Amino acid sequence: MARSEGSTSLTLIPADEARRILADTPPVGRERVAIGAALGRVLAEPFAAPADLPGERRAVMDGYAVRGADVRGASELWPVVLSVAGTVPMGDVFPRGVGTGEAAAIATGGWLPAGADTVVMIEHIVSLDGGARVEISRAVVPGANIVERGEDLARGAAVLPAGRRLRPQDLAMLATFGVTVVDVRRRPRVAVLSTGNELCDPAETPRPGQVRDANQTALGAQVSAAGCDVTYGGIVPDDASALRRTIARALDEHDGVILSGGSSIGTKDLSADALADLDAPGILFHGIDIRPGKPTLFARAGSKPVVGMPGFPTSSLIVFDAFIRPMLWRLGGEGGRDPWPSRRPARISREHRSVVGREDYLRVRLVERDGGLWADPLPGGSATLSNVVFADGLVRVDTAAPALAAGDPVDVLLY
Amino acid sequence: MARSEGSTSLTLIPADEARRILADTPPVGRERVAIGAALGRVLAEPFAAPADLPGERRAVMDGYAVRGADVRGASELWPVVLSVAGTVPMGDVFPRGVGTGEAAAIATGGWLPAGADTVVMIEHIVSLDGGARVEISRAVVPGANIVERGEDLARGAAVLPAGRRLRPQDLAMLATFGVTVVDVRRRPRVAVLSTGNELCDPAETPRPGQVRDANQTALGAQVSAAGCDVTYGGIVPDDASALRRTIARALDEHDGVILSGGSSIGTKDLSADALADLDAPGILFHGIDIRPGKPTLFARAGSKPVVGMPGFPTSSLIVFDAFIRPMLWRLGGEGGRDPWPSRRPARISREHRSVVGREDYLRVRLVERDGGLWADPLPGGSATLSNVVFADGLVRVDTAAPALAAGDPVDVLLY
Repeated sequence: MARSEGSTSLTLIPADEARRILADTPPVGRERVAIGAALGRVLAEPFAAPADLPGERRAVMDGYAVRGADVRGASELWPVVLSVAGTVPMGDVFPRGVGTGEAAAIATGGWLPAGADTVVMIEHIVSLDGGARVEISRAVVPGANIVERGEDLARGAAVLPAGRRLRPQDLAMLATFGVTVVDVRRRPRVAVLSTGNELCDPAETPRPGQVRDANQTALGAQVSAAGCDVTYGGIVPDDASALRRTIARALDEHDGVILSGGSSIGTKDLSADALADLDAPGILFHGIDIRPGKPTLFARAGSKPVVGMPGFPTSSLIVFDAFIRPMLWRLGGEGGRDPWPSRRPARISREHRSVVGREDYLRVRLVERDGGLWADPLPGGSATLSNVVFADGLVRVDTAAPALAAGDPVDVLLY
Repeated sequence: MARSEGSTSLTLIPADEARRILADTPPVGRERVAIGAALGRVLAEPFAAPADLPGERRAVMDGYAVRGADVRGASELWPVVLSVAGTVPMGDVFPRGVGTGEAAAIATGGWLPAGADTVVMIEHIVSLDGGARVEISRAVVPGANIVERGEDLARGAAVLPAGRRLRPQDLAMLATFGVTVVDVRRRPRVAVLSTGNELCDPAETPRPGQVRDANQTALGAQVSAAGCDVTYGGIVPDDASALRRTIARALDEHDGVILSGGSSIGTKDLSADALADLDAPGILFHGIDIRPGKPTLFARAGSKPVVGMPGFPTSSLIVFDAFIRPMLWRLGGEGGRDPWPSRRPARISREHRSVVGREDYLRVRLVERDGGLWADPLPGGSATLSNVVFADGLVRVDTAAPALAAGDPVDVLLY
């Protein structure tokens, strides 16, 4: 059954306390994956530069490799003419050094020949004698247009911390150093189940009194977007022993279980019953002082998290993003990530008063108006799904500032 | 070869003009996918509510379904006592209506029996006579604690626009209406190739003069994160006819081709040569007035985009995010998305002067200092990769405000 948002028999804990408990979730184990499959995976060990980067002095412009001392004083009045000793081949080394009075043509990325410490840009030379000599008629700073060995990174420099979710630039760095297999955390395997006699599968036509189970689809998508492998466990009838057996089986084969529905203290409180005899530490909280999503339940069987989600789709969607997603990031070994990296400052267009101690999440639409960005709260409570679909994001009204006046600045947590 | 950032022979177009040309990219075709595989896919047709939501009047609290007229005047002094007609079964309908002076126990989500239009919260009743009657001693607003048929969405209401990249809440909405197969755009198939004799595969040990090709790994990850299926095409030697054949073959089998390296006007401008005889419209621009990433090349063979990326890994990473990712979103049918949804306001800690007409992208680290958030530009030019790995994001210095003083407010485009 759907969980009531109005029950008073829950022992609510503050949102900050819930976050602290959820953040204690220990990570899953490790595996090794090829770099081509490592995007979005979580690094298990810190990565330090195994060598200097670049490994040699390189040109960062197309031009001529020269000795800086030769060209420092060049000017329109006193141009410097150098003889061209050849061309640095790309992907190979120049067979000899560049001596005083000499230059070697070089392309961006080429290794500087021995003796050369400077590159004169191709646009700043004039070719003489069919390319046998080059004339330089403006001063060049010695060391210009090159990158020194180890200038980007010195061998041993800390580059990527353990717990980093790998981004394209991180993979570029690993590839640069020839690291093609990476130690990462396993993707957590998470089962998603629904409980409730009133639910039917989305593919079925509901009988009178039934509704389609939208939450399992949404939770599966959210779990997958949080970097986990999801198993859809279907709908379990409102029966404590069936639920207990299903959860036990799901825990055997997964790193965590998320149960949709059934966490209210209402007429049929099955989830709490079914979770009462989990392995220690068992139920860690049942009820957070938030709106929407108050009846959220969190337990651990050993190191494996078990979550009872609020039943209204909107509550479930919001509680997942605000509380469960950061917990799954921890389960996946990721540390210290901002749960809401995408924010936009705006002004709230209507006043809002929260209850002291409670954290509220308002669904808002962003609208440009009067030369500013406004957050318009959308109508409809947690029983309506459209507001979270039409919303651009959420405004968190936290316990530090429970009242907002119209026009107050807010941070919109973007979808 | 790596593309020089210093060439002056390119005909640079303004960044806004490049964005306009890139946004013209036509979308790929459609396919139908199951809702469980539709997260992040792009909706091909708008979706309107096929029915009222909810389909019936439902309880949003656990309590008793009553006639509002019966309980409107209830008070401590004049409590109302109603006789309990039974319990609304979850997932089924109450077999008869609720008459005057009657109440039926109901759980959150239950359908209201005929005649009932209000739910009194379980916390606000006192059970009498072993549950045969209930006493209500506070006024209840008629219509409280229910959601009316169609209150969330009326049949026919516009819900999701075509071009929407489907989020978990969008999938919840589709599932609620029993839509389990969705019309979406195909995932674009994109080939990534590198050119350059100086490059070797990351798994190989570079010969003297060579470097490992980090760009293909990074570009493949970026292309995949942009919602495309990527094919890694390996490294093509610096040979115009080999390159031309490889691109032609890649275009036969893909919706677009991204070529890393080879777009400079330097000693060996192969990419532009190789792309010169593409089908119309061919090369659309070669050079954007930006830093880093100036020598970026963009062509279309019919409807298929072909991109020549700048060769420095840092330039390639930034140009992809700023220009090519939005183009691939268009190719995938997504419209109107903010290329940088994640922003954070901060103050720049050092002055920066751009050249008039040029758009600069600074790599910055966010640091809390003196009670504010500061964006510290990281040292190192486009030839260093570490700055883009250590950066929290970018500051775009656009042509409207080419000079920043230390302390000026900036929007940090977050990674």
